[in-house]
Amino acid sequence: MSVTNQKWILKERPNGLVKKSDFDLIEEEITDIKSGEILVKNSYLSFDPTQRMWLTDLPGYLPPVQIDEVVRAGGVGEVVKSKNDDYKVGDLVMGLVGWQQYCVSSCKPEERLRIVPNIVPMPTLLNVLGTTGITAYYGLIELGKPKKGETVLISGAAGATGSVAAQIAKIHGCKVIGIAGGEKKCGWLKEECGIDHVIDYKNSDVKVELPKIATEGIDIYFDNVGGPLLEDVIWYININARILLCGAISSYTSNDVSPGPMNLFNLIIKRATMQGFLVLDYLPKAENAINDISAWLMEGKLKHIEDIQEGLENCPDTLNRLFTGKNYGKQLLKI
Amino acid sequence: MSVTNQKWILKERPNGLVKKSDFDLIEEEITDIKSGEILVKNSYLSFDPTQRMWLTDLPGYLPPVQIDEVVRAGGVGEVVKSKNDDYKVGDLVMGLVGWQQYCVSSCKPEERLRIVPNIVPMPTLLNVLGTTGITAYYGLIELGKPKKGETVLISGAAGATGSVAAQIAKIHGCKVIGIAGGEKKCGWLKEECGIDHVIDYKNSDVKVELPKIATEGIDIYFDNVGGPLLEDVIWYININARILLCGAISSYTSNDVSPGPMNLFNLIIKRATMQGFLVLDYLPKAENAINDISAWLMEGKLKHIEDIQEGLENCPDTLNRLFTGKNYGKQLLKI
Repeated sequence: MSVTNQKWILKERPNGLVKKSDFDLIEEEITDIKSGEILVKNSYLSFDPTQRMWLTDLPGYLPPVQIDEVVRAGGVGEVVKSKNDDYKVGDLVMGLVGWQQYCVSSCKPEERLRIVPNIVPMPTLLNVLGTTGITAYYGLIELGKPKKGETVLISGAAGATGSVAAQIAKIHGCKVIGIAGGEKKCGWLKEECGIDHVIDYKNSDVKVELPKIATEGIDIYFDNVGGPLLEDVIWYININARILLCGAISSYTSNDVSPGPMNLFNLIIKRATMQGFLVLDYLPKAENAINDISAWLMEGKLKHIEDIQEGLENCPDTLNRLFTGKNYGKQLLKI
Repeated sequence: MSVTNQKWILKERPNGLVKKSDFDLIEEEITDIKSGEILVKNSYLSFDPTQRMWLTDLPGYLPPVQIDEVVRAGGVGEVVKSKNDDYKVGDLVMGLVGWQQYCVSSCKPEERLRIVPNIVPMPTLLNVLGTTGITAYYGLIELGKPKKGETVLISGAAGATGSVAAQIAKIHGCKVIGIAGGEKKCGWLKEECGIDHVIDYKNSDVKVELPKIATEGIDIYFDNVGGPLLEDVIWYININARILLCGAISSYTSNDVSPGPMNLFNLIIKRATMQGFLVLDYLPKAENAINDISAWLMEGKLKHIEDIQEGLENCPDTLNRLFTGKNYGKQLLKI
């Protein structure tokens, strides 16, 4: 069995939004796989802000994608050939499959793909039932410890992670304020997801609106965007507030690093905690999250949307949608 | 019984270091006290960086000292008249007694003075056995959770709180790096307190020295100074690092607020926590701290120095000593 694989490799490190010319779309022949390996035909790719970070040579939680390496990305696919007893042809697998049509995995821990049940739609698997949902779940619940009646602020609230975090906060009886861009996203958050207040950063001044809405202060800030907004929020935190740093999408495509918040002193006055976290640390106990999220999905308490682009050739443009606010829901691409 | 009280009241809000002309040293006659009140003759005043914050009109954890109010400060004194059954003449009391010779306390919760045993020297009571020691104890142990072999970095390490935190970290088996100003302070930390490494910020470039010394990264940063140093430290934190914000002495006399650290993103990569705290929250369980600290003092494991100025007229100059690095040990003033 031989297949022709099309894959995107990194040609040079991008500057700002990615350009097609930062990559090469090349073809390779996969004639056979080695003992212990599996061959996966990718179905859907997941696009996440963190992918943009992997393309830089800055130190991160995973090594930078090297020049000439396939672009790293999560996704889901089907095993089409297996020389590993743990996998059989037809298994659906999820993990870091990359911007390519086929993925050869050594099945070693660092390349391990997880077998997932073939009963829910793949886009849902990659969204609320994947790392996106697990990130929101553990960040909010385990680190944020939301209590009934507390005020939870979420930036990037219409994003894949933000929208799950916002709804989990509602399930915990919190007053939830979301910040999102544009009428469509804000409307969805309010009307479909039942978020209490939504600030449209594209059509209003968050700095002005925030104090009007967060009249009881902010107990939890689930931060997906970083940047100057963090400083604005710190002024309004309550005693024992928890600031959860989940991402900093505002800075991933920027070459100028913006200064940090100059009011960190307020963390002392308010005995507040600012904490960064990564979903990687929670994957070993992902099952707890998935069980709860599945139940909420079935009870209709958790809404989700996937924005599905098509065609491997559109990978670079699809990644950019996350940074221009074009994506409406979890960004995926169907190969 | 009538006494003449001399007291410093705030005349105008200071700008940078305080000037005598920001205050007035006035006299008042205290002819009698009301039922429930006590009259205390102050013996020692404590000078702490936070006092400078109380003189501004910025929102803080205690209300700003108002114009014409006596300057707020901790201290210790002796009850010389009591109309309150909880106190008797001769009791030694500690609390917010102010820059004055005598203090009338209503003994209500917000003005409550704590009776302290008359067996240890008053300067020690105000230093390691007072809020200074309690701050270091709970900040480091309860929030920092130091583990044997971890690297603990402490700024303002020769200061009253910093030096206790540094020694408690040593008691917990950590590798301790202190940052302090000048040969005398650095020598004391190394030779007397047994701190592993000391960086003299007055005679070397911390940015250059830190990576050479913190070769295994930083697990706990006990921050007393804030400002640009925080950004330098964030580059070297380890996974699961804890940054404890205890104070920001570098900014208390500054009119220009310096920008915050632009590398907060590293808190995500390192799953690190940055947490502000105030000793106020730990006073209800101060006894645990005092018991442990007393034992360490008796075992000779905890060194401390007090810098004792004299004369109520020198209050403003004594406060400034904290911000010019002149103080050598806990800053006190004997009235």
